[in-house]
Amino acid sequence: KMLGKVLCTVLFVGALPSPAEASQGHISVVLLGATGDLAKKYLWQGLFQLYMDQVSSGHSFTFHGAALAALEPGQRLMFDVLKKLSCPPDEAPDRCAVLKDQFLKLSQYHQLKTAENYTALSREIETLLHQEGLKEAGRIFYFSVPPFAYTEIARHINSSCRPPAGAWLRVVLEKPFGHDLRSAQQLAAELAGFFREEEMYRVDHYLGKQAVAHILPFRDQNRQFLDPIWNQHHVERVEVVLKETVDAKGRTSFYEQYGVIRDVLQNHLTEALMFLIMELPANVSSAREVVQHKLQAFQSLWGLERSSAVLGQYQAYDSQVQEELQEARGYVSTTPTFAGVLIRSDSLRWEGVPFLLASGKALDERVGYARVLFKNRAYCTQSGTLRDAGHSQCKPKQIIFHFGHGALNTPAVLVSRNLFQPVMPKDSWKEGEARSDLHVFGQPLSDFYMYSPVKERDAYSVLISHIYHGRKDFFITTENLLASWAFWTPLLDSTSRQPPRLYPGGVENQHLLDFEMVSGGVAFTLAEPAELLNPSGQTPSDFRAIQSKFRQSPLVSAWAEDLISQLASDMEEAAVRSVARSGQFHLALSGGSSPVVLFQRLARHHYGFPWKHTHVWLVDERCVPLTDSESNFLGLHRHLLQRVRVPYFNIHPMPVHLNRRLCVEEDGGAELYAKDIVALVANASFDLVLLGVGTDGHTASLFPRSENGLEGAPTVVLTESPVKPHQRMSLSLPLINRARQVFVLVLGKGKHDITTLLSRVGHEPRKWPISGVSPSSGQLVWYVDYEALLG
Amino acid sequence: KMLGKVLCTVLFVGALPSPAEASQGHISVVLLGATGDLAKKYLWQGLFQLYMDQVSSGHSFTFHGAALAALEPGQRLMFDVLKKLSCPPDEAPDRCAVLKDQFLKLSQYHQLKTAENYTALSREIETLLHQEGLKEAGRIFYFSVPPFAYTEIARHINSSCRPPAGAWLRVVLEKPFGHDLRSAQQLAAELAGFFREEEMYRVDHYLGKQAVAHILPFRDQNRQFLDPIWNQHHVERVEVVLKETVDAKGRTSFYEQYGVIRDVLQNHLTEALMFLIMELPANVSSAREVVQHKLQAFQSLWGLERSSAVLGQYQAYDSQVQEELQEARGYVSTTPTFAGVLIRSDSLRWEGVPFLLASGKALDERVGYARVLFKNRAYCTQSGTLRDAGHSQCKPKQIIFHFGHGALNTPAVLVSRNLFQPVMPKDSWKEGEARSDLHVFGQPLSDFYMYSPVKERDAYSVLISHIYHGRKDFFITTENLLASWAFWTPLLDSTSRQPPRLYPGGVENQHLLDFEMVSGGVAFTLAEPAELLNPSGQTPSDFRAIQSKFRQSPLVSAWAEDLISQLASDMEEAAVRSVARSGQFHLALSGGSSPVVLFQRLARHHYGFPWKHTHVWLVDERCVPLTDSESNFLGLHRHLLQRVRVPYFNIHPMPVHLNRRLCVEEDGGAELYAKDIVALVANASFDLVLLGVGTDGHTASLFPRSENGLEGAPTVVLTESPVKPHQRMSLSLPLINRARQVFVLVLGKGKHDITTLLSRVGHEPRKWPISGVSPSSGQLVWYVDYEALLG
Repeated sequence: KMLGKVLCTVLFVGALPSPAEASQGHISVVLLGATGDLAKKYLWQGLFQLYMDQVSSGHSFTFHGAALAALEPGQRLMFDVLKKLSCPPDEAPDRCAVLKDQFLKLSQYHQLKTAENYTALSREIETLLHQEGLKEAGRIFYFSVPPFAYTEIARHINSSCRPPAGAWLRVVLEKPFGHDLRSAQQLAAELAGFFREEEMYRVDHYLGKQAVAHILPFRDQNRQFLDPIWNQHHVERVEVVLKETVDAKGRTSFYEQYGVIRDVLQNHLTEALMFLIMELPANVSSAREVVQHKLQAFQSLWGLERSSAVLGQYQAYDSQVQEELQEARGYVSTTPTFAGVLIRSDSLRWEGVPFLLASGKALDERVGYARVLFKNRAYCTQSGTLRDAGHSQCKPKQIIFHFGHGALNTPAVLVSRNLFQPVMPKDSWKEGEARSDLHVFGQPLSDFYMYSPVKERDAYSVLISHIYHGRKDFFITTENLLASWAFWTPLLDSTSRQPPRLYPGGVENQHLLDFEMVSGGVAFTLAEPAELLNPSGQTPSDFRAIQSKFRQSPLVSAWAEDLISQLASDMEEAAVRSVARSGQFHLALSGGSSPVVLFQRLARHHYGFPWKHTHVWLVDERCVPLTDSESNFLGLHRHLLQRVRVPYFNIHPMPVHLNRRLCVEEDGGAELYAKDIVALVANASFDLVLLGVGTDGHTASLFPRSENGLEGAPTVVLTESPVKPHQRMSLSLPLINRARQVFVLVLGKGKHDITTLLSRVGHEPRKWPISGVSPSSGQLVWYVDYEALLG
Repeated sequence: KMLGKVLCTVLFVGALPSPAEASQGHISVVLLGATGDLAKKYLWQGLFQLYMDQVSSGHSFTFHGAALAALEPGQRLMFDVLKKLSCPPDEAPDRCAVLKDQFLKLSQYHQLKTAENYTALSREIETLLHQEGLKEAGRIFYFSVPPFAYTEIARHINSSCRPPAGAWLRVVLEKPFGHDLRSAQQLAAELAGFFREEEMYRVDHYLGKQAVAHILPFRDQNRQFLDPIWNQHHVERVEVVLKETVDAKGRTSFYEQYGVIRDVLQNHLTEALMFLIMELPANVSSAREVVQHKLQAFQSLWGLERSSAVLGQYQAYDSQVQEELQEARGYVSTTPTFAGVLIRSDSLRWEGVPFLLASGKALDERVGYARVLFKNRAYCTQSGTLRDAGHSQCKPKQIIFHFGHGALNTPAVLVSRNLFQPVMPKDSWKEGEARSDLHVFGQPLSDFYMYSPVKERDAYSVLISHIYHGRKDFFITTENLLASWAFWTPLLDSTSRQPPRLYPGGVENQHLLDFEMVSGGVAFTLAEPAELLNPSGQTPSDFRAIQSKFRQSPLVSAWAEDLISQLASDMEEAAVRSVARSGQFHLALSGGSSPVVLFQRLARHHYGFPWKHTHVWLVDERCVPLTDSESNFLGLHRHLLQRVRVPYFNIHPMPVHLNRRLCVEEDGGAELYAKDIVALVANASFDLVLLGVGTDGHTASLFPRSENGLEGAPTVVLTESPVKPHQRMSLSLPLINRARQVFVLVLGKGKHDITTLLSRVGHEPRKWPISGVSPSSGQLVWYVDYEALLG
């Protein structure tokens, strides 16, 4: 009641406009965590800016700071912050002083702890509006609170604080939005129970940074110049980088849980990258189109592997964690404070272009940028200095979106003068002075067209303005968020065991954190100096492939990723050997999910594979059309054949679909395939057959107690699977056993039981068909990962 | 007889060793053109060097200068040259003086004009050897004469000057070896009538340059470093360049016929390039293996097109030609004195890597080099100066074979220090001093490991030594020569009409000759300044595609190359439109030779073609296995499908080979194809059908008076061709006429008569099947080149 009176007083002094002036209705902004760091540093200032900008918009405003603290101390804390709000330099001091005064009067503190608190808040707002005769336009709830508090607050808002029909609700959420894909999905599902998608504004403050926000408009306004060159044929690489000089001191309780990938790469750098690489929507201000294209860009990215990243940790981090988190003296953290990641896309536009993301704390400078470096396509006939005079075509060509800090110390867009003079909106970007004393990426600033914002604005105040305007394209949708986590989580999982490289911090890092692209991944350029070696020593991932015996045959075992890379190398070696011997390589491949990573590895890492001389056969096939998503061949095509150059004539899908019907005995598909094999494969002896094992001991499409294919002639058979689709075509065991080499790939915990069983049983193909694999004169090798082998 | 006496005198004074010493036998060297420029400048000095090097080898020598001049003046001229022979700096002056004296005594002049002269020469050699009791080891005939004299001399040598059985004959030939493929073949065929392949040593003096000759040994000795990086994934570009400051003054009678491509690119630069890009033979000193691998490398190169080159001519050239060749004042030469050429390879190793060759006269500096620039694969985390300190991985990485001249003024091999320290043979290459004042390609010399020859040797003396040692790998075999001409001739043909860009010469050329890679070819970077425009104005090739009417349908006409590029663009446009409309593009393609250039153009220039959504059908097929060289599908596969990413399922070869037999009625191949079309192509209406026309007016495989396919149902038919292979499968006219678009491509003079005829006749498909092409609701467009249209 007392608060109500305070408010009334405020209104009486005229801070709220009369109903006639406020024809657009009233907006209540509730800042949760009103006395926290973020609020102190950016949010209140952003809200004040909103007020200054929109005071004459026809909307009226009240601002409600909220926290867990009781009214009295909370109010004091909050008003200490508000009193320090500054006037922007481009604002007339008089006007600003008046507006600041009004802003303070329109702001009040609330303790929001219990359900009743929320109900009371809502009632107060209603009462006020009723008293003043104002229409309610909407309510903004800004969550500047730790993630564990989200659900509780969301529940209260949903049940007690929704505005009446006709007015909107906007809840603004601050990261972290989960910790990995699963937790993000869970959080998203919870929030979806309280808010509709269009009510949620997930903040990535990078989207409010002027240089980031201008990437899409820049691409749009410069289509004429960029259309011919914004592709794999012209772009050499894309870099998105945030370097910090500060370390995690004082924030380790947060940082130790997250690390640099979750803190910076998964969100900020990924979003900037997406703006650069997504297909440009016809309308770049359509939030729907932007999100759609962004999701498509995510789809085109190659999955990350452990070798996609290099990780570092500044040396003082461990002791900071020990101190701040009261960990034991010997505590060793593997949380990375530096990461360099190589991302690749499969799209026609970007295939082959490396996207490098890098971020770290305790580095030599503070700077953020996204940089598109173009290939040098010129030959300059003149020598030396003349070659480089003026805007020579032989100078590097690049476009840089400079987020801030660094030598330039301003947001900026830079375009090499030998590229083109960009179209820039004159009202918001101005051309910078050509300071030739400054160098950017090794070139004098005078080599660039440089533009900086006419009015530099803080990211939060930009975003608060976007929230006010309902510009959802500046926020992260649930789909967008989950796509990003789906992309990053495999890397987080595969590197969680990996000790980061230690670095001293600052300029002393020297070249220690330089990294380079090697065979599909990245690696630090310098070997690790002995004195910086991680004291924890070898981790399981350091054991590369182990060689031993399984069922009297050679066994190669390792963690899945290493195992696959060993298997792929062994396959290439077999192929090269076979082509040298006979001019051909006859390879029979199994379907299923295990080989997918193998196929990807072969396509991406094995440039020396003699595909031109390789014949690809199927070990087995499901009786579905080849273009059906269940088809083994389709998977093989998508993950391998579509990416390498096997001649059309050398590709041999199983003829499961003849005369427009599937695996009908009379159509003779199996016989046809057998005939093809006899005609093309010398002695019907494949050079290499790749098999898998099912949990029931089946291999190829030969199932326990199968009537066909376990013995008898070396041929191709129709079989029945216990699972759908039931009908299958398969090489028979006798045909498989004619091969020169048979590799069996077994991956994952789910295969531990059958692996253990197989290690004990003998030759019993009718019980376990895989036990019948025993090449008559060829070699059998088992590739079993640690999870299948050790459980 | 008198000459015999002179020789005897020589021998008496002891210049020839006694038979016991000369146990390896006697070698007679005959230098034809002994008083010409090349002989004066290099060859006699090279022969003297050979003598100095091999005087104790166990071989004895005599040197026979020959020319058309009579004995008396010829002898005087020649000995004037011989007297001026210099002693190399590393030779003891005393020894050299004695040896020079002996060399002069062992040398004599012969007039070689008539058949009798040759017989006499041979007899003299035999007499001498007989008298001295020397065994004959071999004879070297060095042709330093104009090419028109080759055949005559070769005939005489073959008929009159062959050494006796057991001794070898080596004839050394100097370029030019022809003017284009045809003349080179002719010359090669003539020479083959006189000499065996192993007897011929065709000189490309670049192969004697130390830095060129060391390319293969370097690659061999540094396999460990180069194996992982000598490929498309690491090499950014390869440049092979010869820049000259001199112009063609005084040599225009030669130059006007040849120009820079024939003079420098076809031979010197191509050879250096081949050493860089060929697969490395196991044994790099095996001439056979080297030639074999070189030929394979030629096979992998893309054919050159007009757009593959930029051509220039220094401004004074025309007036020099007018003066020296007594041409009229208005004479305009189109002979290029500058060329920049983009070469590409299809090999797995080099696909996508640009090879740039450039050479010119009247440029700003004299220098020759082959340079391999590697991609920058590093990200340097440190900023600015620190980034570039030491051997930072972010500095450019390159390997340079510096042929000579330039700032270094010595042959040299340079390897960036951030690449690797190369293995170099210590006896022949020494490390250079790190002169940091010198810059090479923008980097201080101290950034490189630099090696130069311990002993700098002239190319000709190196080659003469190789001739002596029978090292055929340093010479151009006939196969090698013809492969090179086969590669260059299409460019020479297609650019012969093209006026070169004029340039002032020297440093004033500024950026006028800078060029860059654009959409598969090269173009000058700067637009041509008006004042330098060729006064001859437009040439026919300047007319781009002309649009008009033919048989009431749209006609596009142009020179073949422009026509193809227009057609390819129109096809891409049709494809994009179709995919936008229906998600698919059904394209039916004809076989034969005309579409090959089209297929190549589509594969190389149309990155935006929606192949993923394109279905490729055949218009017609020959009844041969798909892998037969006669198969239309094989051609389509080789030139198009193998290079783009059409999904396997979307490729529809005609089923001419069922049940292991060809086009048997009962196998129902035609019906099967028709069924596939009905099943997949909406309304059996192809989006685009590409047709050709035969000289008899046939199209697809529908021949005049064919019993099938000219009318009736829209189906697929078996037909009979008047030429082999007789059996064909073809879409029927009614099926073709259901298409949305039909493009007919007609190329070449050979099609002029049928084109003229077709322009006059009406709809008479039984006489001329092509006249029956008339899409019922689609569009027909004719693409006819000027040669077919105008004859």
